Amino acid sequence: MNINEICANPKKHSMNVASLGGPVLDSPVKGQSFLDENSRISLATEISQIESLKHKTIPSLEVAGPHKKLFHDPAQTRVAIVTCGGLCPGLNNVIKGLVEVLSYDYGVRMIFGIRYGYMGLNPRYGLTAMHLTPETVDNIHESGGTMLGSSRGNQDPKVMVDTLSMQLNVNILFCVGGDGTLRGAQEIIKEITKRKAPISVVCIPKTIDNDLNLLDRTFGFETCVQSASEIIKSAHVEANGIPNGIGLVKVMGRDSGFIAAHASLASSVTNFCIIPEVPLALDGEHGLLKALDRRFFKYRKDHVVMVVAEGAGQDLFSAAAAKDASGNVLKHDIGHFLVDKISEYFKKSGKEVNIKYIDPSYIIRSIPANSSDAIFCFQLAENAVHAAMAGKTSVVVGSFKGAFVLVPLEYVISERKKIDTESALWHAVIGSTRQNSYFFDNSYENELPGRSAGMDYLSGEKTRL
Amino acid sequence: MNINEICANPKKHSMNVASLGGPVLDSPVKGQSFLDENSRISLATEISQIESLKHKTIPSLEVAGPHKKLFHDPAQTRVAIVTCGGLCPGLNNVIKGLVEVLSYDYGVRMIFGIRYGYMGLNPRYGLTAMHLTPETVDNIHESGGTMLGSSRGNQDPKVMVDTLSMQLNVNILFCVGGDGTLRGAQEIIKEITKRKAPISVVCIPKTIDNDLNLLDRTFGFETCVQSASEIIKSAHVEANGIPNGIGLVKVMGRDSGFIAAHASLASSVTNFCIIPEVPLALDGEHGLLKALDRRFFKYRKDHVVMVVAEGAGQDLFSAAAAKDASGNVLKHDIGHFLVDKISEYFKKSGKEVNIKYIDPSYIIRSIPANSSDAIFCFQLAENAVHAAMAGKTSVVVGSFKGAFVLVPLEYVISERKKIDTESALWHAVIGSTRQNSYFFDNSYENELPGRSAGMDYLSGEKTRL
Amino acid sequence: MNINEICANPKKHSMNVASLGGPVLDSPVKGQSFLDENSRISLATEISQIESLKHKTIPSLEVAGPHKKLFHDPAQTRVAIVTCGGLCPGLNNVIKGLVEVLSYDYGVRMIFGIRYGYMGLNPRYGLTAMHLTPETVDNIHESGGTMLGSSRGNQDPKVMVDTLSMQLNVNILFCVGGDGTLRGAQEIIKEITKRKAPISVVCIPKTIDNDLNLLDRTFGFETCVQSASEIIKSAHVEANGIPNGIGLVKVMGRDSGFIAAHASLASSVTNFCIIPEVPLALDGEHGLLKALDRRFFKYRKDHVVMVVAEGAGQDLFSAAAAKDASGNVLKHDIGHFLVDKISEYFKKSGKEVNIKYIDPSYIIRSIPANSSDAIFCFQLAENAVHAAMAGKTSVVVGSFKGAFVLVPLEYVISERKKIDTESALWHAVIGSTRQNSYFFDNSYENELPGRSAGMDYLSGEKTRL
Amino acid sequence: MNINEICANPKKHSMNVASLGGPVLDSPVKGQSFLDENSRISLATEISQIESLKHKTIPSLEVAGPHKKLFHDPAQTRVAIVTCGGLCPGLNNVIKGLVEVLSYDYGVRMIFGIRYGYMGLNPRYGLTAMHLTPETVDNIHESGGTMLGSSRGNQDPKVMVDTLSMQLNVNILFCVGGDGTLRGAQEIIKEITKRKAPISVVCIPKTIDNDLNLLDRTFGFETCVQSASEIIKSAHVEANGIPNGIGLVKVMGRDSGFIAAHASLASSVTNFCIIPEVPLALDGEHGLLKALDRRFFKYRKDHVVMVVAEGAGQDLFSAAAAKDASGNVLKHDIGHFLVDKISEYFKKSGKEVNIKYIDPSYIIRSIPANSSDAIFCFQLAENAVHAAMAGKTSVVVGSFKGAFVLVPLEYVISERKKIDTESALWHAVIGSTRQNSYFFDNSYENELPGRSAGMDYLSGEKTRL
Repeated sequence: MNINEICANPKKHSMNVASLGGPVLDSPVKGQSFLDENSRISLATEISQIESLKHKTIPSLEVAGPHKKLFHDPAQTRVAIVTCGGLCPGLNNVIKGLVEVLSYDYGVRMIFGIRYGYMGLNPRYGLTAMHLTPETVDNIHESGGTMLGSSRGNQDPKVMVDTLSMQLNVNILFCVGGDGTLRGAQEIIKEITKRKAPISVVCIPKTIDNDLNLLDRTFGFETCVQSASEIIKSAHVEANGIPNGIGLVKVMGRDSGFIAAHASLASSVTNFCIIPEVPLALDGEHGLLKALDRRFFKYRKDHVVMVVAEGAGQDLFSAAAAKDASGNVLKHDIGHFLVDKISEYFKKSGKEVNIKYIDPSYIIRSIPANSSDAIFCFQLAENAVHAAMAGKTSVVVGSFKGAFVLVPLEYVISERKKIDTESALWHAVIGSTRQNSYFFDNSYENELPGRSAGMDYLSGEKTRL
Repeated sequence: MNINEICANPKKHSMNVASLGGPVLDSPVKGQSFLDENSRISLATEISQIESLKHKTIPSLEVAGPHKKLFHDPAQTRVAIVTCGGLCPGLNNVIKGLVEVLSYDYGVRMIFGIRYGYMGLNPRYGLTAMHLTPETVDNIHESGGTMLGSSRGNQDPKVMVDTLSMQLNVNILFCVGGDGTLRGAQEIIKEITKRKAPISVVCIPKTIDNDLNLLDRTFGFETCVQSASEIIKSAHVEANGIPNGIGLVKVMGRDSGFIAAHASLASSVTNFCIIPEVPLALDGEHGLLKALDRRFFKYRKDHVVMVVAEGAGQDLFSAAAAKDASGNVLKHDIGHFLVDKISEYFKKSGKEVNIKYIDPSYIIRSIPANSSDAIFCFQLAENAVHAAMAGKTSVVVGSFKGAFVLVPLEYVISERKKIDTESALWHAVIGSTRQNSYFFDNSYENELPGRSAGMDYLSGEKTRL
Repeated sequence: MNINEICANPKKHSMNVASLGGPVLDSPVKGQSFLDENSRISLATEISQIESLKHKTIPSLEVAGPHKKLFHDPAQTRVAIVTCGGLCPGLNNVIKGLVEVLSYDYGVRMIFGIRYGYMGLNPRYGLTAMHLTPETVDNIHESGGTMLGSSRGNQDPKVMVDTLSMQLNVNILFCVGGDGTLRGAQEIIKEITKRKAPISVVCIPKTIDNDLNLLDRTFGFETCVQSASEIIKSAHVEANGIPNGIGLVKVMGRDSGFIAAHASLASSVTNFCIIPEVPLALDGEHGLLKALDRRFFKYRKDHVVMVVAEGAGQDLFSAAAAKDASGNVLKHDIGHFLVDKISEYFKKSGKEVNIKYIDPSYIIRSIPANSSDAIFCFQLAENAVHAAMAGKTSVVVGSFKGAFVLVPLEYVISERKKIDTESALWHAVIGSTRQNSYFFDNSYENELPGRSAGMDYLSGEKTRL
Repeated sequence: MNINEICANPKKHSMNVASLGGPVLDSPVKGQSFLDENSRISLATEISQIESLKHKTIPSLEVAGPHKKLFHDPAQTRVAIVTCGGLCPGLNNVIKGLVEVLSYDYGVRMIFGIRYGYMGLNPRYGLTAMHLTPETVDNIHESGGTMLGSSRGNQDPKVMVDTLSMQLNVNILFCVGGDGTLRGAQEIIKEITKRKAPISVVCIPKTIDNDLNLLDRTFGFETCVQSASEIIKSAHVEANGIPNGIGLVKVMGRDSGFIAAHASLASSVTNFCIIPEVPLALDGEHGLLKALDRRFFKYRKDHVVMVVAEGAGQDLFSAAAAKDASGNVLKHDIGHFLVDKISEYFKKSGKEVNIKYIDPSYIIRSIPANSSDAIFCFQLAENAVHAAMAGKTSVVVGSFKGAFVLVPLEYVISERKKIDTESALWHAVIGSTRQNSYFFDNSYENELPGRSAGMDYLSGEKTRL
């Protein structure tokens, strides 16, 4: 069952612990229109799509926002916040936003920060939860990372629910994390459901790769792209600083090339953008090595900037890959692999190229959120609190076509978004890098008068672009 | 006739100089799916809205993208690019994008950069157009401003069309600019139409205030918000550095408070955000002066950060306002006005406050585009070129709900977007600043135990937040 | 008596409260060589100067560093830190450094942060001192300003010494501030001396203008120059963005043009740098107005970037100037004055220029210290602690020719440093701006072939540089 | 013969091609005092040192500046500029400065930019020199790297001098580069001398490690430190984001730890700074592994930030090291080595630590110069031009105790500066990191009441600092 089918048959309401019975109160939120509870956003946006659905249910997503009626009584509400997985710009903004909206909009006073991801819900690590107030979170948004700490991997859901319900006695849990974290949240919800405990679990998805299904943006992504594009600039400087220089940058992107593509486009100096979605051939007439050869020695460019997503070209490796504590497949190191293969190729050809390899690793992700992500994080936090206070559970807060929506947890986990290589995004990358001119030997310089090809190594004038 | 009505009865196709007859050629664009010519995006996105339109025409906008058939023959095409009005981050990216897409995707060779806005189309200023190539624009995106220069005000359309058609002999004109520029473009199009000249005029709207009708984003806005939020941080530091410090920042926003609102939210340290959409009262129980008084002397906060949009509080001035060369109303200086009024009020009350006023003026706008705007500019440029090469004219390229669209020029000019004070955006600002607690004297601290009010000037501990 | 004379007859030791008698202990400082107590740095550095002094006392300054013997017993030591005057990058680094060195090197536990400058030493304001520990200061260096707050103006020295000796019971006071602050410190020391109290007062001088006598660097200056040079870049962009654009930036510099000169040089795009040390003539053949006229209309440059120090051209105003709470003369607003005069001049001449005026005010100074200033602040703090623990009093810690020195308080206050207009610094500014070519009409372009002068307004090609 | 001995017996004048006979002209430089030709700066600055030399020659260096008399006639002067070796912030500023001072101060018109280091002086690579003018270099300072390109390794001096004297016909050569480059320059000078050619060779030393003998600063160093300290911040965020996190950053520093030391001090979050000057022991009671163990499991800190210079700990490797094209010894990879050893140690101990390793490599050095370096580069360029125009040759321009000096080429090459581990700099690093507390188990926390040691893994509260 694919996403469109799922969304075409939505549960009228997302899961709500109110179904367990209990108090329903008026919201204290002031100054904003309350949500129409039936409000849903169409997944279809093109007129022709919509027309074709005129007699069917149009697939749609539930709109997020402040609810007129609460399930959880603010005066009694106790909240836990946990951040899991790899760091991502904006984690602290989300924490700060949650604490501020809970405190100022709803008057909630008991908010716990769980230390080091799900580990902090397992008593055997002896990690004491922090008491969070607007004061303690006042300046955290100025630092990268998460003030709570994080960790990979899950813990026994029974143990975690014991901690939540018996030790901390919370009725709301906010989970901020990626795939593994959301799967962990599902386990927690199952255990909660089994116990018929009136605990809401609301998730804010974190993936630096911006590859979540249905959602058009995940927090931190823009900040990472900004940061990666600065580093590509460095690679450009290095590549220009040496004869036949190749500046090679490896960026995050395990299964999708969104960071590589956006950062290439943003920097506007990338010549080759290599992503997991496009199979990478090294050898042959249309392989990367021949493309580099053409660029340097046929079209006489004086440098190459290449950006490669960490998940690209994995089928070039023969060995099987290991996994990390979150269950993510550990990728083979495509960066050093390319350095070796390119060096070897040109050495054999008796041509000199100089490779400058940059692996910025954590540098890209451990910075504070830029202003756009900061705003986005605050709005995610706001909507997560609104949903939780109304009793919603097993939902993910996200953005779809610019609107904030609540998506059932299972929809988001089901599959990952990838770059559509026929999309405007990828075309823009192809247009900006012009890499296909070199892969397929049809550079527009062919037709430019006055540039003779076939000159010897390094002799003659080279061109920059 | 309002926008929805307009869009519900759209011309099936936007204006196209192809209607004058002439060649139709195959597009040389490679590697991207061509546009379905009938593709349109629904203005309605909520299911209930869509349902209610089931038997009517759903208002919609034409999708932008590469057309299979061109009207202008790339080999013969001569293009002019003009940038007008105040500077805005991303102008150089747009210019670079236009030149690259024209050159690389279509093979167009004759591209002219018009100097200093519409002045450059009037021979009496003796400004020679620049010949633009990928080489000349290669690094311009690293600088703010526009490599072509800009100016305010229009020129005689007859003179301009003479220059375009007789001197430069162009068949495509790209206009990048704001309201005044778009109105100037309309005059040019009228003159072109009168002459039945097959010249396409495609506009890329520029408004640092992000207040264009129908379009959800204008280029440069995010960069300005980032820059403004850094300056708000400075105001925060200054306000904290002195007893009862008020850090007051004036930001752009002639008729709408988008920059003020977003920058306040992004910085997360703003205590009062004053925008044109919310009437400003100084005096009275719910006026700004009393609100400041409460914050300092009742709730014992030790500082205030206030962000004011330049167009706010204009009705507090008695004199009539002047206009600039573009016909924009020149706003009264609300910044210094507030400094004076606040000083006066507290002086009278015998209470000391210290105001640090910052007017960053051009600092905010004269920087290079950040990565998100850089990408957006490239995509606007791409779609503008696609539209122009297909013969489209009198259209504006923009983004709606994340999709690139072509909007008839007259729709965009008709009215300006403002902040909806019942929207999630404004609520987020109110939530983040908590300014209403002070305007309406219902700060949550009321209920906090252990903080006694009514202490003398500066005695007792103050709190930061 | 001038500085050289003073330093040629130095007291063999700086003032030391040890002269009052009392304990002398071994220093607990580990891992660094202790200071030779007689170590002094020569003020003369040129061989010929030194030779000429062979038979006289060579003027010199006392070297700073860790002393083998302490006067204050760390276990009993109570310390107060006060920051006064306008904000300056690095204040928080100095505070952090003082706290860390006191805590970690000496084991001092009782450190008080005085709130809001000398006001915090006057009980009538009811400001409670903060208890400072390495924990409370751990992240303050990441923010601009001072965590303690600051204020201008002095308080009654008797009241302040009462607070220090009776209420806080401290034996060391660190004063961080400018001229006014140092004079305040002198008053405090007089009162302390009168009471024969064994309290050390050590000052760390703060002047954003870098204009202290004898000292070759004051903290925060480099950071401000970096920040100002970014803003000059903005002015450059604005000036280039409009016909005959003038980007005018006012920077700090009340009596000296160090910020203006360094920022002009650093940005390398400034065309006119106007400082207090060089008298400013507006009118006449060698006046500024004629120089601008020449640059635009004789030498056909298309823009001007002008940087003006706030203290420049003050004799052009007729009215007398007011003073601020620290006793500093408030300067007339040279920025707006120039805008008016230039506008008027060109209006009269029937020539169009467009002025973009930027007054960055506090933006330049309220940022965190850059890495070079951060290091410098830590080293100032280290040496201030070493001096204070040894019982030194009435001394200022500073840097001379790259070495850290202790200077008697009265030397530093006696006069202010100014830019020597025959120095390499000013020559570099003149060389980089080439402003004299326009003031004195001898632009090297005179001799360049192929550029005809005397063309009409805006016609013909203009040149950028 | 050591440096002091060398400088105590200086040649009265540095080498000058004027000795070959030829024209001597008046300098056209305006607005700056000319240099006293005998002006020299004392190497001794302490009074006691100076006193002890009263009857000997005081070691000294020649002061740089504009000479009244020129050897090279500006109208006939042809200049070549070459940049060699690894990139360094400020290279473009130096090039721009040289071109501007030559053009504007002296009116020199023929300036050649040699491509890709000394390769560009060997015709077999077919690299055409660029003609440099103020226009072509106007914006290069905004980019990192060198507009001319660079390369490692020398070329045959005969071939290079042939190119200089016969093909380009230059009489001045500026060499910007490191050790290898200066040695190459020496070879060129030897060949020039042999031919009695009146060609001046003036060097501007480039070493990112700031480790040149006699000179207290080399350009680009401050910029790199700023950049490295930002990356240390990232490591801090990562280390804090995971249980028992270790953020390990490798920075440049082949033989000296200046970057590591300054960046550690500037960031103020480094806990261990490992430099080549301090022997590194891994094992044993005072080894690094035990120190880490103590910090985490005895003193219960929750993270470690470690900065290691690439040249540190080389004696821990058994294999011999290779060399690069410049003859520099290639260092063993201490970064990955430490990652392996630390992981192994804690695995064996059954304790969990999480290492986040960052190797920023070229990111640190490929950025534009900050304002302080920009000014410094301009002043180096100015003084290099002054020296060259006066006929000086075989000299290096540098800064000593804040003054610009000319140092004979051979003095600079003779040995490298290292961090004196008894200096205030290293003490400041030790004070700021407090690493010796962990190496020698005497953390001040020993004495702090209320913190019990010996708790189990991760249980109990951890402290941040």
